[in-house]
Amino acid sequence: MQFTSELLLDDGVLERQFSLGETPGTLWTPGSAPAPLILMAHNNGLPKGEPRLVARARHTAACGYAVATIDAPGCGDRPRSAADEQARADLRRAMRAGRPVDEIFESFVGPLVEKAVPEWRTTLDALLSLPEIDGPVGYSGWTAVGIRLAVVEPRIAAAGFFAGGYVPRAQREEARQVTIPLLFLLQWDDEGNPRQRALDLFDAFGSKAKTLHANPGGHVGTPWFEVEDGVRFYGRHLK
Amino acid sequence: MQFTSELLLDDGVLERQFSLGETPGTLWTPGSAPAPLILMAHNNGLPKGEPRLVARARHTAACGYAVATIDAPGCGDRPRSAADEQARADLRRAMRAGRPVDEIFESFVGPLVEKAVPEWRTTLDALLSLPEIDGPVGYSGWTAVGIRLAVVEPRIAAAGFFAGGYVPRAQREEARQVTIPLLFLLQWDDEGNPRQRALDLFDAFGSKAKTLHANPGGHVGTPWFEVEDGVRFYGRHLK
Repeated sequence: MQFTSELLLDDGVLERQFSLGETPGTLWTPGSAPAPLILMAHNNGLPKGEPRLVARARHTAACGYAVATIDAPGCGDRPRSAADEQARADLRRAMRAGRPVDEIFESFVGPLVEKAVPEWRTTLDALLSLPEIDGPVGYSGWTAVGIRLAVVEPRIAAAGFFAGGYVPRAQREEARQVTIPLLFLLQWDDEGNPRQRALDLFDAFGSKAKTLHANPGGHVGTPWFEVEDGVRFYGRHLK
Repeated sequence: MQFTSELLLDDGVLERQFSLGETPGTLWTPGSAPAPLILMAHNNGLPKGEPRLVARARHTAACGYAVATIDAPGCGDRPRSAADEQARADLRRAMRAGRPVDEIFESFVGPLVEKAVPEWRTTLDALLSLPEIDGPVGYSGWTAVGIRLAVVEPRIAAAGFFAGGYVPRAQREEARQVTIPLLFLLQWDDEGNPRQRALDLFDAFGSKAKTLHANPGGHVGTPWFEVEDGVRFYGRHLK
């Protein structure tokens, strides 16, 4: 893991870019190190520099957590194939037209999840070797990657998932194997995530401690207080 | 309003029993008066002395709110008619047997709500004349009474509703007229509150700011952290 740049924020949070093999990432650490770690992944591989993710990560770090994110293969700063670009364009077009997207989603996002999860685990190994990180590990964000990680990675102790209307079949089927505490956050009118499917997924999780939060509005309309509720959820399970 | 007894709790909260005409009630006030007021009603007229309500009220008062509850007509310490007793027994028997309860519910709880709401408004008038109460008013608990109060009583600024699977038809129809901020709390496996009906009710509320919280388990299994989340909800809207 090589740190390539760093920025000290007003609230004492240190924001560092890193690379780990071909994987670029960002690590936020609070002044009060060592701190428990939260892996923060943006739904469907949006770039790690996406402003909403960065705002969430900075706030969470200021509350006393180390937070890390990486770009998934073919996402963010990483090279993307013509096939990826085509699949993304097809997906966007189908969604805009209100056509069924399951097939495109399955063939595009399914493999993306399969490729992303091992990279998250390698990143986790590297992060846990840093002296400024200690304690249990949480996960936040991209539902499909989080389900897979929660099933295969025993170091993940609690997870917050966002959206979850469209999740590849493999992860929908794995949901009942997830048993860690969950906070499942849903936008009630999310144009890209059918509500009933998200509710069915919440129902399917095997966790005894799972909480659903839902608010009106579209995909990007989550109220800020949900970020604060998320921090309190991690406080119950990681501290 | 006559205070009939008082108890000073460890955390500085003063718990007083009162009577207002035929209505018996309890008022909790924090050391830090004057405080905003929360009206706390137990679903379907359970007694004001019910331990879960008392625990919730004491905690909320310790967080800086005045909290008041009253016994609805025919509930708690108030005289009840043979017809009430019969209806309650019928309702319990039908629920236990898994038979449809809509009709019994409608004929028993519907009038209970109609009788309870004016008493809550009279109680609100009396409470707001006390020097230890000041500021906006919140509501917590019994969904049907809360809907009716939110529609007819402009002094209610925010409300937390619990359950909401069985709500009289009149209140289901009024739900879209409710426009104040809401926190809608649901037990995912509530044996007495069909989940889909509760979700439909959440959907129907006219409020732009409404948040759904759901946790697994039956009617009385709500995790304690939801009480704390409730206090933060009131903090956003009443302070």
